[in-house]
This record gives sequence, C-alpha cells and structure tokens, in this order.
Amino acid sequence: MNAQLRLPHELGVIELAAAFERGELTSRQATEAYLARIDKQDAALNAYLHVTAHAALDAATASDARRAAGQVLGPLDGVPIAIKDNIDVAGVPTTAGIAVRRGRLAHGDAFVVERLKKAGVVILGKLNMHEAALGATNANEAFGNCHNPHRHGYTPGGSSGGSGAAVAAGLCAAALGTDTLGSVRIPASYCGVVGIKPTFGLVSTRGTVPLSWTLDHVGALARNVADLGLLLDVMAGFDSESPESRPRTTGETRYAGPYSQRLDGLVIGRIVGLDAVSLQPGVVAAFDRAVETLRTLGATIIDVRLEGYDFTPLRLQALLAIEAECAVVHGDDLAADPDGFSETFRTFVGWGARQPAHKLATAYRAVADVQLVVRRALAQAPVLALPTAPHEAFAFADPVPHVQADLTSIANMARVPAISVPMGRGDTGLPVGLQLLAGEFQDALVMRVAAAYEAAAAF
Amino acid sequence: MNAQLRLPHELGVIELAAAFERGELTSRQATEAYLARIDKQDAALNAYLHVTAHAALDAATASDARRAAGQVLGPLDGVPIAIKDNIDVAGVPTTAGIAVRRGRLAHGDAFVVERLKKAGVVILGKLNMHEAALGATNANEAFGNCHNPHRHGYTPGGSSGGSGAAVAAGLCAAALGTDTLGSVRIPASYCGVVGIKPTFGLVSTRGTVPLSWTLDHVGALARNVADLGLLLDVMAGFDSESPESRPRTTGETRYAGPYSQRLDGLVIGRIVGLDAVSLQPGVVAAFDRAVETLRTLGATIIDVRLEGYDFTPLRLQALLAIEAECAVVHGDDLAADPDGFSETFRTFVGWGARQPAHKLATAYRAVADVQLVVRRALAQAPVLALPTAPHEAFAFADPVPHVQADLTSIANMARVPAISVPMGRGDTGLPVGLQLLAGEFQDALVMRVAAAYEAAAAF
Repeated sequence: MNAQLRLPHELGVIELAAAFERGELTSRQATEAYLARIDKQDAALNAYLHVTAHAALDAATASDARRAAGQVLGPLDGVPIAIKDNIDVAGVPTTAGIAVRRGRLAHGDAFVVERLKKAGVVILGKLNMHEAALGATNANEAFGNCHNPHRHGYTPGGSSGGSGAAVAAGLCAAALGTDTLGSVRIPASYCGVVGIKPTFGLVSTRGTVPLSWTLDHVGALARNVADLGLLLDVMAGFDSESPESRPRTTGETRYAGPYSQRLDGLVIGRIVGLDAVSLQPGVVAAFDRAVETLRTLGATIIDVRLEGYDFTPLRLQALLAIEAECAVVHGDDLAADPDGFSETFRTFVGWGARQPAHKLATAYRAVADVQLVVRRALAQAPVLALPTAPHEAFAFADPVPHVQADLTSIANMARVPAISVPMGRGDTGLPVGLQLLAGEFQDALVMRVAAAYEAAAAF
Repeated sequence: MNAQLRLPHELGVIELAAAFERGELTSRQATEAYLARIDKQDAALNAYLHVTAHAALDAATASDARRAAGQVLGPLDGVPIAIKDNIDVAGVPTTAGIAVRRGRLAHGDAFVVERLKKAGVVILGKLNMHEAALGATNANEAFGNCHNPHRHGYTPGGSSGGSGAAVAAGLCAAALGTDTLGSVRIPASYCGVVGIKPTFGLVSTRGTVPLSWTLDHVGALARNVADLGLLLDVMAGFDSESPESRPRTTGETRYAGPYSQRLDGLVIGRIVGLDAVSLQPGVVAAFDRAVETLRTLGATIIDVRLEGYDFTPLRLQALLAIEAECAVVHGDDLAADPDGFSETFRTFVGWGARQPAHKLATAYRAVADVQLVVRRALAQAPVLALPTAPHEAFAFADPVPHVQADLTSIANMARVPAISVPMGRGDTGLPVGLQLLAGEFQDALVMRVAAAYEAAAAF
C-alpha cells in the first residue's frame, strides 16, 4: 500500500500509523486533511458538535516533533480520532447531547481520553449523540439530527450516532462511543463500520456523563477490527478510582492483531429463536450468508437458544434501571432547568424515577440474571453470533422500531464483550451488522473471530 | 494434645480432625457427644431451630467407614458443624427465622453446603437467626430469642446469633453464617469467637434466602482462625449459576494455616476518626491493647482515616437497598400472609419498598462508592484494623444501639474481606472483637494477621 495514492482520510488507524512511520505523511498533514474534510462535509452530516482544530493541530505538531526525535509513543501517536460528546476532553464542553449542558466545560480528561492522549492520539473534536444517550436514532432537538452517511435523512443509529457517521464518512480515523443497551453497536451496524462494547469494567467510564453506571460501557468504532484492537489495547486498564472498573483477568489480554485468517476448531453458536424480534428479510439473508462464511473459515456452527430470555421484557427492565439512574445523574439539572431537556426525555426519566423501589429492585435482579442465560449459552459455544440490529437504518420520519436494541442489550446485561462487524447490505441497500459475543474478558476472542470474518467477507 | 483428656465438644475443627486421624475419636462419637450436649444445653440458649440428629449420625457413620477404608475426603471429613437457617440443607426446613417459612423444606443443598458435604462435613442442624437476617440482636418473636452463652438474657448478636452462640457454647465445631451489614462479625464479637465475611462473591450465596443480593455474603464462625481457614478453603469456589459469584483472582488463594506468628514488615492502618460511632470505653481500651499487640508482632502501625466516609448515613443507604431487595425476595409471602412476618419487619420493608426509584438508585450509587473510600485507605496500609462493634453485647431489654453495624457494614459495601477475632473483654466483662480488613480477594491476608494476633493475645 502506498499512502501517496490515497487521501489521508481514506486511511484507517493502522494505515495512518504505517504512513507516518514511512515518512509518507505527517500527523499535521493528516490532521489538516481531516479538518478540511470536516469543514467541507459535516454541514450536511452534523456528526461533530465541536471541532477542536487548534488543539488538534498542536497535538499533531507535537506528535511529528516526537517522531522526528525518535520518541514515538506507540502506533496511535499522531492518529486523529474523535470523541463522543458524553466523554470529557479537558477544556472542551461535554454536552452529552443535552441542551442544558451546552457550553459546560470539562475540567479534566476522562480516564480513557487521558490514556489515549498519553498514547499520542490527536483529538479532532466531540461527536453528536442522542440526547443523554437515552435513545438510538441521534435525532436531537437541541443540536440537530446527525445523518447516516449512506443516506441523508436516515438515522446513523445511536446513541453514538456521530461516532458511527464520522467514522463511516472518513471524518476521523476512529471514534470513541458509549454503549448502554447497544449505543456503539447499533450505529456501527447502521453505518457499516466496526464497533465494540468491551467486557463491563474493562474500560473505565470515569469522566463520562453516565446514562446508567450499571450498564454503561465505553467502546470504540473504527473501519476495521485491527484498528479497533490498537485502540482497545490503550483504552483498557484498571482505574482504581472507578468502582465499576475491573482488572483485566487472566487469558488473552492483547487486542491488537495480527489475527489468524482461520477459525478451525472453534465452535460458534448461531442464536436461534429470534421470532419475537421480527428481523427484516434482508437481515436474515445477510446473517445466513455471514454464518456460512464463518463455516468456510473452519468454524463449527451449532444452533444455540437463549433459554428463558425474553427479549423485549428484559430490555424494558434494563430501561427502568437506566431511567432511575439517569434521574440521579441529571437530578440537579432537571430540577433547575427542566426545559434544558426534551419533553420525551423528561417524560421517560420522570416516569422511571417515580416508580416504587421494589419495582426497581426487581428490574436489577432480572438484569443481573441475564448473566446466567448468556453463560449457559456460552457453555455450548464460546462465541455466539446474531445480527446486531433487526433492521437497516430507517428514515427520521419513520417510527422507531421498538425492538431496535433487543439484540444488543443482552450483552450489556450479561456484561460480556460484543462486537459488530459489517455483514453486507439489507433490503434497501443500507449496511447491516453481524454481532459476535463471548464470555467475560474474552474481548480478544470476539476480535479474532470478527477479524477473520471481516477478511473473508471483504465488504 | 491428647483428645482423650478433653471432651469432644472442647475440640475445634483441626483438633477434631487430628483426633479422628489418630484414631482417638470417631466422627460418630463426636457427633453423639455434640447431640447430647445440644439436648442438654440448648433449651436455655435456643441456638438450634432444627437438629438433624438422624442425618448427622448417618453422615458420621459414613465418614468413619470412609476413614476405615482409607478414603478420607479431607480435613473436614466427619467434623460436626451447624448451618444458619437461611442456608438450604436438602430435606430440612429453611425458615430464615421468619414465621411464614416455618416447615418450608429445602429441595436441595445450598452451593456451599453441597461443597461442605462433599468434603465430608457432618451437619448437626439449623441455627437460630434474626428474622430474615434484617437485624442484629436475634430477638425473634416467632422462634424465640437466642441467648448469649456468656450471659443469659443478653443478645448473642445477629443476624447469625445462633451461629455465634452455638460455636461459643460448644454446640458445634464451627458454623456457617451470612453477613449483609455485619451479621457474621457482630455475633462473633459478642460471643467471643472468630468470624469472617469473605470478599464479595468468593463464596456463592446460591441456595440461601437473600436479604440483599448486592450486599449478602456467606461466611463462617469458628473457635480459631485456623479452623475458619479450613472451612473457607472448601467454601470458596466459582459458581457459574450465581451472577454474584466471582472466580478467585490471582494472589493467595489458600486460607488454611499454618500461619506465621510474626507480622514483620506489614503496615497496618489503625482506623481513626470514629467519634461519630461512640465506642464504649472498654472497647477503646481493648482496641488500644490489640493494636499494641500487633505492633509487638512486628507490624508498623499508622493512623488511617476513612476520608469522606459518614458511618451512619451510609449504613442507612445500604439499609434502603436491603429493604427494597428484601421486599422483592419476600414479596409473594408478604402479599399472601403478612402476619407471617413481624410488624417491625413489615414496617421497615414496606417503607423501603415504597420509596421512589430515584432514591434507591441514589442509595446504590452511594453504596458502590464506598469501594473507593476503602481502596484509598488500603493504599495507605494493606490491612486496616478497627473494633468489630462499638460495644459489648447488651440485654434484650435494653434499646438496640443505632450504631450497632456502623463499623461492620463498611466491608459489605466495599466488598472486601473482614474478620472479627476476640480482643478480650469490655466494660462489663463480655467479649469484644477486633476487626481486620484487606483488599478484595485478600482474604488470606486478614486470616494471616488474625492468626498471628490470636496466638499472641491468647484470649
């Protein structure tokens, strides 16, 4: 590959790193190219809420200086990425997509941003999202809708809609997102990029605006699995100041490639019994092809049922936990300035906050028990495959499918890693995603399977 | 030691095992001796709710047969212990000290009971407890108060009051208890025995009647630390069918002795700033002496403050979580037969259950954040020392001190191991306990320190 033949925004994380390494491109050049592209293209997409051009150029210049001095910090040094706007970047507003937080500056970096900065990453700006991360369309009254780069007027998914759109449109090399019921994976699926929700606690959420501290995860979206692996290797790390952070346990703890192209000897469970989720025909067909591809890679495919798992009711139990916790997180703002939130948000959260405590305790119990359902399924096959979303992206004018997060929320409740990787196109030609799950702290395993699939499918 | 010179009930777990090994005593003899002693002494104490004499004798006979065949299962084989009545033993009622559950048979063994049975333990019966484990006096309207063996008419502590009393009175070699805010350690302190609340999740709670699944721990009470270590080595183990169970992580994972008699090089943090908890003078004096003993063993003692920790308010936040979860656990029974619970229980639990969800979510957040307070303290010293309870046991006729669980509940919220070991006598000559805490999964460390202290203090 010769980077000179391609524009900087066409290169992913690893390709940029290689181009920097060969001296074909500087971080400053790449950063300028991204900023120019954002300037030109983002008016239509609205993926960025805040572009930190000056800081990005300064960081790029510093990266180039390090490189010139032979002091490169690692493969991410100088790579331009962007950050979902519920994750603190010091000195920049963290709106979480909520009107009331407009202009509210972050005093410090989120734990994960601090780690990325220490690895030399250049931060281009903050990305649009569904209000407070409570929803998955990125329709946003306060900051404007973010559009799907594949079809204007269509949702990029959410809540990390800006992250999905920016990565897909080449407005950053990769992006951070957060995922509480599917908010990284749904936009990855809708926008045709790769996204991972790691094991609960593997990546610290400190310095993010919580939606639900019991279900929130910080994840990332990128153009390919290997790019994601480089990011996750930097993002994952124990944070003693976060009660939700957990040390990496034994087993594979390196997420970057190279990955094997084969899956010989691996048993993959194809999740069956999804009737209640009403998959679009195009998703079913793409999923069937994806499973065949996994089989041709050497994997043994077996059918696995999530025994006792009731998709929509359990997602609604999780939603109650989210609403109650969200009411705590935004309690002061809701009291001081209720009009700083959408009516939809106020209604949902107000309802959840007023429910009796025993109902919330019941919801927490049900959510925790999902770990057992998934463990039993994983006892049959160490990797589980299912579609990421039951459908392609839809128009903002269309009703939101109520099953939108039914296939993703299970991994949040089960606390297991889940990745979404493009599996082609659905009924109307928009991207759809293949979702892979594995056991707690088996993040490297889902990445390995996703990488082999990605290479074979070559979408 | 020659077991022939002492009665079977005077021997602890290790001593019994040694006597069995030397052929000086059979499990059948020991079991018969315990049953006779229970028969004679328990009418006054009321430690047992149910004596499983036939099953115990059968198990003892089987143990003796294994020994004769050279097939001993381990050091616990044939040792008679007893089980708190909120832990399932197959075929025996599990009342949890609640009238409504009288006669309700357990269909299977709790995970931990199954493990103990597989190790050859003989189960003498089920032990009295505070109603539903919600309280720490073991005053019990339905099943009668359990008395402190050191002074009749006085509380043995709770909720595992029967466990503390039975171990102290020699009515079993050791006992299982549960601990949600201090329910193993408070009776250990009041009754002058050793008790441990392990790291959250180290011992599975499956097959117990929950008080609060987010704060419950199964622990044990014994006459000395080494006995406790043998039990914990069998009790600890990952239970894939419990969402709260966690694998033992790296580090020391063997809990049985022999332990070093010295603590050279170890830094122990003496917790200061306990004014709000109003310790009795006798507890302060005993604690000062205990700290001096730790110093003479070679430990370096430093003062450590639990910065930002507000004892009573945080214990009350935990109590709200408990009440809400308890309302879920006993919801069906409360609806079907409210009179099967005490009025006190109904009032507490009903109040908690009716609170708005946002208040419960706030409580969970506060409880989880206690992990940080303790981590910061443990960063100063890997072991923390404080009294177990602010006072000696009190008369049933006296008011219950509201600070009763203020010193123990912190370890439940922080999820760290905590042991209570006798530290002499308080103002009126009743036992008081020294509490030792360490980091998550550092259970072996608290046992090691407790064992060295126990040997030096020799109470």
